Amino acid sequence: MNRLSFADLSFGDDSAPLYISAARAVEFEPGTAVVFGAAYDGTTSFRPGTRFGPDAIRRVSDGLETYSPTQHADLEDAAILDAGNLDLPFGSPEPAVDRVAEAVSEILSRGGRPVMLGGEHSLTAGAVRGALEQHPDLVVVQLDAHADLRADYLGEKFSHACAMRRCLDLLGGADAPGEHRLLQVGIRSGTREEFTELRESGRYTSPEGVVLAERVAEFGQRPVYLTVDLDVFDPAYFPGTGTPEPGGIDWADFEQLLAALSNLNIIGCDVMELAPQLDPTDVSAVLAAKVVRELLLAMR
Amino acid sequence: MNRLSFADLSFGDDSAPLYISAARAVEFEPGTAVVFGAAYDGTTSFRPGTRFGPDAIRRVSDGLETYSPTQHADLEDAAILDAGNLDLPFGSPEPAVDRVAEAVSEILSRGGRPVMLGGEHSLTAGAVRGALEQHPDLVVVQLDAHADLRADYLGEKFSHACAMRRCLDLLGGADAPGEHRLLQVGIRSGTREEFTELRESGRYTSPEGVVLAERVAEFGQRPVYLTVDLDVFDPAYFPGTGTPEPGGIDWADFEQLLAALSNLNIIGCDVMELAPQLDPTDVSAVLAAKVVRELLLAMR
Amino acid sequence: MNRLSFADLSFGDDSAPLYISAARAVEFEPGTAVVFGAAYDGTTSFRPGTRFGPDAIRRVSDGLETYSPTQHADLEDAAILDAGNLDLPFGSPEPAVDRVAEAVSEILSRGGRPVMLGGEHSLTAGAVRGALEQHPDLVVVQLDAHADLRADYLGEKFSHACAMRRCLDLLGGADAPGEHRLLQVGIRSGTREEFTELRESGRYTSPEGVVLAERVAEFGQRPVYLTVDLDVFDPAYFPGTGTPEPGGIDWADFEQLLAALSNLNIIGCDVMELAPQLDPTDVSAVLAAKVVRELLLAMR
Amino acid sequence: MNRLSFADLSFGDDSAPLYISAARAVEFEPGTAVVFGAAYDGTTSFRPGTRFGPDAIRRVSDGLETYSPTQHADLEDAAILDAGNLDLPFGSPEPAVDRVAEAVSEILSRGGRPVMLGGEHSLTAGAVRGALEQHPDLVVVQLDAHADLRADYLGEKFSHACAMRRCLDLLGGADAPGEHRLLQVGIRSGTREEFTELRESGRYTSPEGVVLAERVAEFGQRPVYLTVDLDVFDPAYFPGTGTPEPGGIDWADFEQLLAALSNLNIIGCDVMELAPQLDPTDVSAVLAAKVVRELLLAMR
Amino acid sequence: MNRLSFADLSFGDDSAPLYISAARAVEFEPGTAVVFGAAYDGTTSFRPGTRFGPDAIRRVSDGLETYSPTQHADLEDAAILDAGNLDLPFGSPEPAVDRVAEAVSEILSRGGRPVMLGGEHSLTAGAVRGALEQHPDLVVVQLDAHADLRADYLGEKFSHACAMRRCLDLLGGADAPGEHRLLQVGIRSGTREEFTELRESGRYTSPEGVVLAERVAEFGQRPVYLTVDLDVFDPAYFPGTGTPEPGGIDWADFEQLLAALSNLNIIGCDVMELAPQLDPTDVSAVLAAKVVRELLLAMR
Amino acid sequence: MNRLSFADLSFGDDSAPLYISAARAVEFEPGTAVVFGAAYDGTTSFRPGTRFGPDAIRRVSDGLETYSPTQHADLEDAAILDAGNLDLPFGSPEPAVDRVAEAVSEILSRGGRPVMLGGEHSLTAGAVRGALEQHPDLVVVQLDAHADLRADYLGEKFSHACAMRRCLDLLGGADAPGEHRLLQVGIRSGTREEFTELRESGRYTSPEGVVLAERVAEFGQRPVYLTVDLDVFDPAYFPGTGTPEPGGIDWADFEQLLAALSNLNIIGCDVMELAPQLDPTDVSAVLAAKVVRELLLAMR
Repeated sequence: MNRLSFADLSFGDDSAPLYISAARAVEFEPGTAVVFGAAYDGTTSFRPGTRFGPDAIRRVSDGLETYSPTQHADLEDAAILDAGNLDLPFGSPEPAVDRVAEAVSEILSRGGRPVMLGGEHSLTAGAVRGALEQHPDLVVVQLDAHADLRADYLGEKFSHACAMRRCLDLLGGADAPGEHRLLQVGIRSGTREEFTELRESGRYTSPEGVVLAERVAEFGQRPVYLTVDLDVFDPAYFPGTGTPEPGGIDWADFEQLLAALSNLNIIGCDVMELAPQLDPTDVSAVLAAKVVRELLLAMR
Repeated sequence: MNRLSFADLSFGDDSAPLYISAARAVEFEPGTAVVFGAAYDGTTSFRPGTRFGPDAIRRVSDGLETYSPTQHADLEDAAILDAGNLDLPFGSPEPAVDRVAEAVSEILSRGGRPVMLGGEHSLTAGAVRGALEQHPDLVVVQLDAHADLRADYLGEKFSHACAMRRCLDLLGGADAPGEHRLLQVGIRSGTREEFTELRESGRYTSPEGVVLAERVAEFGQRPVYLTVDLDVFDPAYFPGTGTPEPGGIDWADFEQLLAALSNLNIIGCDVMELAPQLDPTDVSAVLAAKVVRELLLAMR
Repeated sequence: MNRLSFADLSFGDDSAPLYISAARAVEFEPGTAVVFGAAYDGTTSFRPGTRFGPDAIRRVSDGLETYSPTQHADLEDAAILDAGNLDLPFGSPEPAVDRVAEAVSEILSRGGRPVMLGGEHSLTAGAVRGALEQHPDLVVVQLDAHADLRADYLGEKFSHACAMRRCLDLLGGADAPGEHRLLQVGIRSGTREEFTELRESGRYTSPEGVVLAERVAEFGQRPVYLTVDLDVFDPAYFPGTGTPEPGGIDWADFEQLLAALSNLNIIGCDVMELAPQLDPTDVSAVLAAKVVRELLLAMR
Repeated sequence: MNRLSFADLSFGDDSAPLYISAARAVEFEPGTAVVFGAAYDGTTSFRPGTRFGPDAIRRVSDGLETYSPTQHADLEDAAILDAGNLDLPFGSPEPAVDRVAEAVSEILSRGGRPVMLGGEHSLTAGAVRGALEQHPDLVVVQLDAHADLRADYLGEKFSHACAMRRCLDLLGGADAPGEHRLLQVGIRSGTREEFTELRESGRYTSPEGVVLAERVAEFGQRPVYLTVDLDVFDPAYFPGTGTPEPGGIDWADFEQLLAALSNLNIIGCDVMELAPQLDPTDVSAVLAAKVVRELLLAMR
Repeated sequence: MNRLSFADLSFGDDSAPLYISAARAVEFEPGTAVVFGAAYDGTTSFRPGTRFGPDAIRRVSDGLETYSPTQHADLEDAAILDAGNLDLPFGSPEPAVDRVAEAVSEILSRGGRPVMLGGEHSLTAGAVRGALEQHPDLVVVQLDAHADLRADYLGEKFSHACAMRRCLDLLGGADAPGEHRLLQVGIRSGTREEFTELRESGRYTSPEGVVLAERVAEFGQRPVYLTVDLDVFDPAYFPGTGTPEPGGIDWADFEQLLAALSNLNIIGCDVMELAPQLDPTDVSAVLAAKVVRELLLAMR
Repeated sequence: MNRLSFADLSFGDDSAPLYISAARAVEFEPGTAVVFGAAYDGTTSFRPGTRFGPDAIRRVSDGLETYSPTQHADLEDAAILDAGNLDLPFGSPEPAVDRVAEAVSEILSRGGRPVMLGGEHSLTAGAVRGALEQHPDLVVVQLDAHADLRADYLGEKFSHACAMRRCLDLLGGADAPGEHRLLQVGIRSGTREEFTELRESGRYTSPEGVVLAERVAEFGQRPVYLTVDLDVFDPAYFPGTGTPEPGGIDWADFEQLLAALSNLNIIGCDVMELAPQLDPTDVSAVLAAKVVRELLLAMR
């Protein structure tokens, strides 16, 4: 199961994509968005495959323009680097979560802005932990179909069904009334218990731009980590994910939500749960890549 | 249609595959096998998609071992580099053929051994032209289902249906009796005219290792270019190609053919006509990658 | 074509799904929703495969929660049993329609509420016949893309293109003016003759919740049979069906329609025309399963 | 690569579809809509396959009714003939563009109305050239996701990324202020330069029916050529295309746009960029066929 | 569900395939092979889809040469016409079987040689009935994986699981000892009862050319109907069929079997049970088309 | 992620397959083959999905006969029960391996013969451990493409790449000369180190029936556990697996191998590494089901 040792070497002036495996040191200017893949799906209970998400986003990105007419901005003006995929172990999620925490903390400490491509949502707990090391006053905004508030799932605390419970643990447990460090936007699936908590805590936010804009006004310039579970989109727009849930947002809704967030101080973000092989049209991967483009431009 | 400017940068010690787009100079030691992709399928008349072949071979190579039990040899002992994909234009095949000719000639002139991953078979005419510049006494061995001897196809001289006619032009036209510079191994599809020529010229060779071994004995240490149109395999073994033709060889047959060639002076080779998206099982890409592994080891 | 005789036996405390083939008697309390599959697609003219619908709904149901945030209700509080698939013959539709009629009549006579998973829409004529035996004053609400009002289709009276014509026959033929026993909601495809009838009869109803709510107000507590041809959804949301028709409803529309029906006395329902193998993403099956969940909760 | 010589002969009274290859003369009455396929995709840079578009539209058309409830009109009342696919060369796009220009000019000169099924969008330049020969005062309305205004793409002037730049060349270059011969409706992807031009020229039109109706009022009864790049639809509705772009129109939007155009003097049209094999559900082909039906009825 | 009325008209000199729906009279010279499709799969119990077989064979035939190197013969020298698909009803198989019987009898009575493309194997009973009307001394050779000797299947006498039982009924019931009118070649699946009958009757024949050649020597110039259930091939070579059965023949075996039959007086044949949509590689359709080509050449 | 609570209830006399989730006690007579699924793929490094293997084998088993013509035996005469799938945890493989060990030990202790359907090959270590508890003199025969002799894989000792190393540990480490408790049949992929060990230990056995028959003669009536990694088949025959390796056996080879084993005292077996969703033709699942049928009959 080793790779053919196709070495790291490019040919001619405009060589095409190439898989490489050699390690390299990362150097970047402060302010750079550092994209990295987290190709782990070990706790996915229903339909696996988000391990293939980061490479699919890269592959289809070739079919998109670098310019966003909505934001009147171009990736060519942004400082971005792709750091490749983290080297994550198989099996238990905790070492993978740890590795993500280290990476995010290191990128932030060197002035970069981490942009994680998933991979399953459980890894977001690692990203939030890493971000809290550098930004103790962090707040988190979650776009998602699922509440992900289970204490554990079949005994596994780091299941992707528990992603936001783990983040809440890190942010100080259940929110104090009137003071939220987590907003949960667009949730439409969960247990009765999860929805009771969602409603009582006030963390639930409708997936409408105007509503979100009002909610986030209180954040001012506090550091924000934005986590996008792509299944917040309706399965018509994004079928390539493990647990599709009818009733989600469309692209226009997303642009409104993003506009509501664009004045915030987003210090890092992730785009999770693309399982590209579940959608043979590749349209899910294209949507994910466009989400990444818009986030990269919105973070500038 | 520009790529997201995901830059050339790898992260950590064991970073995973990454698409890169930056140009780099190629340096290698004499004797190195220089793998490059030629992702062109512009003349494919029936089912396109060989443009995706080179990247698919790289992608699935991760599931194969580097060691070949048949050859008792390991890629880790071989000098190999992957130079990425050539930058080929769309549309007319002639510029693409020219670009391949330059690349092959340059690699050979610097002591390397070119290994081209296709892409459609028409490009082999370029590789043979480039090889003849460095080795005027070149002979060519073709493994293929199709004769590819049409003078033109719907007016296009560089169609993949004419690949070997173009090579014959370069090798001095029709062979003199008793002196062949082209062997056509395993051909099982063509027009009546092509088969008449095949039989009368004596260029046809049965796809059996013992037969081939006898035929190539005359070549001694003359330089040999080996071109493998993967549709020489039966579609059961290799469905992922534009014009599958029932009745081909299996893997054991291929190993026998390769053994028959292994004492020759193979100065370059190609592996053509994988259209990976036509085979959702990816087994065609895996077979292509194993063919590449075995060729790399046989060329040492 | 017999099954491996994998017998009826489960292992351990939390055994996973298992195919069984043994016969068992059905016992249930009055008020129970009795789910059964009707895996027949013998008259499907264009793209077959609804025979695989019932099992696909069961398979993907594992990825959905039992709780509906919209209805604030949980399947765990509902009396439900899955009676498996009816044993339906191949070939001519009439025996299959008869078998459905018997099953529906029996379930109703024992106090249950039938929930049929299709299978093609022609079987609804059987369900309506069975329901009329127990509830002579039945009214029918149809959600559908197609009028299904042909007298016959290529000579076949029980074709799925004639499903609602057969129901109308049972309900007393063409409606008297001002007194409708059939509402046809969301129809967007049919012949000129069908649309003329739709408009003149007043049976056509716009697929908007507020419109439907007004229309059904007259039904009071009369018994209602609800038939859902899933192609009422737009193909973007539900591609897995034999005759997709662009221009349909989305999930939010469906929730509005369901709310409009929720105060009615729904004594039985069906969810028809899922052809799961036509949608490799499985999103169509997931939507169908969520429709079933919402119906089960709305019928309580 | 020749066909089995299955000859041109039909059997019985209602024979089913048959592939034929014999040449036949075209005869038609003035006013007839002459449908023809242009199965060329030679410049497609990302994902090829629109060459299979015309035959897929024919294949799935069997699942649609001939009656349009929206337009209250039936294809059975329309004069239509299907002239089969043009015989287009492989490789360079210019001969293909020329062949389309000839066909469109000839159909118009004989009183017919050309309806081209693509194939890639670059061919529209040919159709516009042919139409200008017969109608020098032609105006063009483009429904599309992409601006297609590049001067060239990787050196190829007739790339599908340059389709509308070539049309503009034919229509007199950049529009004079206040006098537009090209409207670009629904564009949501392009380079910064393309969008600057779009905005400054006033050619951009929002994909809303009421907006378009206002814009086209000035055209009166001038001859209009309507070109529909199907990727104007959101990928949720139309995934089967080479460069899907999230954020497009849905079917209801399309009906509004068509209504806005229905009083114009549409002398020809095309429906381009269906790549049916990219969408295994065939829903993209069905949508394309319904677009064709609606256009055929709107052109009467 | 009517077709768009794309009329019967071809354009230019080398027009491409076109679906036509108009009726036409069939005229042919004696000795012509009359190909027709029988697109029926109404009794298929496991995985339907052979209704799509005939059109798939036509579609992929474009990728094959007309010349057979094995037989040294070319379709261009053969008298062949494609009569399109029979107009078969849905539902019960008996009307479909009757229609096939009429067609075969008529073709034979006019001097033609019927070549039926299936469709499910039950239709062969119709073809044999039609052939017996013209050739009372007919013998039948069956290549197949399944014995198809059930008296009925779930009550249906004309199920494809009973295909050869129905043929035996027509040929005079159980064979007299030493005098066989049915040879069953390559059978590898059936019930215990079927295999007992196969062995005791002597009808079973090993799928080896030399064995078959010996068995058919007794037939001399008696008229032979050859029925090929394509699942006689191993699923590796032919996965696109409803009930694949591991352990079948490969292409070389088929060529040997065909050679064994080539001196017989084959007055008609069929190629059944291709379900093309089950094999996304289309390799099954290509194999079926090559079988058709070889049969057409062997029947000359 | 809970199931719809479709309860455990069957309807009518011949109810079709149904997913159930209730726990039931297992009772069986001594000598019964107890089939159970082990739907775990947590260490699969390349392409996951064997978790779906057991249910796929059950699903397609409906298309196979219960009678084996090769063995002249029928499943209807065999004592078999299907115990459903074990309840295995996600994440780390060790608890899953433990659960398999318990199940196998319990089945054997109660006189049954365990037949495990995988799932990934790492679970075989559990089965061998459980079997050793009841049969300390157990020997193991492995049919496989891969040596699976790594000490660990990326640090994971229970990776499927280490499956047979773990079994060897249990069987007493490296074999003593001339006394083998493990035969490794058909291995064609591994590292140089693995192949050196294979050759030196004498455990490697050629995948030919006559060779294997000779090798196993020494076992007499010692208890044998047979583990079949289905990738021992060539990918042409079995593409649906995570790490396909060209060059494997075909069905006839398998029947020869099985015949060589049929006189042994096989006390348990497994059939591993089917990943059904990787093969859209379902032919891989059908082959796996036929392997299961033949093993069930051979174990009687």
